[in-house]
Amino acid sequence: MSALILEIASSQNKTFKKFKSLTLKKYREKEALFLLEGQRYIESALENGILFEAILFDETTWHESIDTPSKEFYQSATQIYLITEGLFKELSQTEQSQGIIGVLPIPEKKTLTQILETHNSNLIMLDRIQDPGNLGTIIRTADAAGLEMILLVRGSADPYNPKVVRSTAGSILSVQLVEVDETIETIHILKSFGYHIVVTALEGATDYDDVSNYGAKNCLVIGNEANGVSTAFIEASDARVKIPIIGRAESLNAAVAAGIMMYKLRSLDRL
Amino acid sequence: MSALILEIASSQNKTFKKFKSLTLKKYREKEALFLLEGQRYIESALENGILFEAILFDETTWHESIDTPSKEFYQSATQIYLITEGLFKELSQTEQSQGIIGVLPIPEKKTLTQILETHNSNLIMLDRIQDPGNLGTIIRTADAAGLEMILLVRGSADPYNPKVVRSTAGSILSVQLVEVDETIETIHILKSFGYHIVVTALEGATDYDDVSNYGAKNCLVIGNEANGVSTAFIEASDARVKIPIIGRAESLNAAVAAGIMMYKLRSLDRL
Repeated sequence: MSALILEIASSQNKTFKKFKSLTLKKYREKEALFLLEGQRYIESALENGILFEAILFDETTWHESIDTPSKEFYQSATQIYLITEGLFKELSQTEQSQGIIGVLPIPEKKTLTQILETHNSNLIMLDRIQDPGNLGTIIRTADAAGLEMILLVRGSADPYNPKVVRSTAGSILSVQLVEVDETIETIHILKSFGYHIVVTALEGATDYDDVSNYGAKNCLVIGNEANGVSTAFIEASDARVKIPIIGRAESLNAAVAAGIMMYKLRSLDRL
Repeated sequence: MSALILEIASSQNKTFKKFKSLTLKKYREKEALFLLEGQRYIESALENGILFEAILFDETTWHESIDTPSKEFYQSATQIYLITEGLFKELSQTEQSQGIIGVLPIPEKKTLTQILETHNSNLIMLDRIQDPGNLGTIIRTADAAGLEMILLVRGSADPYNPKVVRSTAGSILSVQLVEVDETIETIHILKSFGYHIVVTALEGATDYDDVSNYGAKNCLVIGNEANGVSTAFIEASDARVKIPIIGRAESLNAAVAAGIMMYKLRSLDRL
């Protein structure tokens, strides 16, 4: 593909401004692009044939620590930009940056119905998770547990927020994300495709370890950190489960709770 | 107890300097004190009779949003300091502070042997967990799962680091923390008290869901985020377990993995 390496040394450079705007949700949506940091994740994505819009390097690192075969590998895959150290720092969200950021297309949005026509195993629905670290960790864990489809109820944190992307540890590229409405219609669609709706709740809920009515395929619903799953979803659910608190803690971290439940579903699938 | 409310308006004030020094490990150890943010956790600790060295308020919040009964409640419990807004911000580690910080004594250190003489159920050992958020979340989850004893191998993050304390969501006050040596002697002591050593490992490990040789009481060992459990501990273990990765993720977040394993032990205890 490309051959020329482009250099950016001015904060007024239009391309730099475009890349920098991708730290904000509004411009990520407009450009349909997002930023991915981490050399290992970027190289793994390139090896898997994922198409990049560009790869940005801190010019210091490019000159000093990238060896010739790697340089050729990157150049053969996509457009390379070398950015001066100070400007690169404005793009990086990590304290100790590796000096490499990928710019990737946000996959085209699909509707829930489109997705369900080709998907036939357990999935997870996140009902307005707010903390970027929690959302990223849940995406990572879902990938690990084999739940490759994640439904995000409108009002959740943006999965392409750089903090979320970072917490996914590369799994942002492995899972399918679908935005769904916060209305009961979402539950009806899931049920029409044979999904059993399992919500985590506090009231009227059974110990997840004792529940006998998990379905053959389940949609696990994890709620907002402060307010839990919305009442409408709880009322329309097939099973309400809770992870019991034995000690004095008030609650579990949402990502930990999601992890325990996702691996519980995996255990059930093995029976 | 106290009656006078003390005001601090200068960064040169000796007491202020002492409180500010507690953001650093060196001074926390010297003073045997740590900082706890969060009105709910502080009030819950006061109600449970936990002794405070002092409670610090942003003077703006104290004057404007603390009601009279609350003011009396705080004053009856400990020494109150009102600190000007700018100085208070130097003490707070949260972006949206509630304007209240508790100063608490770090419990006296006990040896592993002292602890085991009075403890007789599952426990968890953290083998150099580095990330403060992970350590805090594991402490919170251990409390929730009923593992009230946490062994920290020398070289772990400091549990009284304000970021760790915050991630524990109050559980820092509910669990017992014991620092242990990174030597094999630690394993020998645990075994002499009848503990079965269960390490999370990648090589030569069995799916945690299939392991048949958990013990009657287990010491679960969770490893460093990058390097896992140390080789000496793995070699001396009674069982090596792994949480399988079904999808393309490289690994699980350490706090999520610890949560899945701790609730697995809780399930086994119920059989």
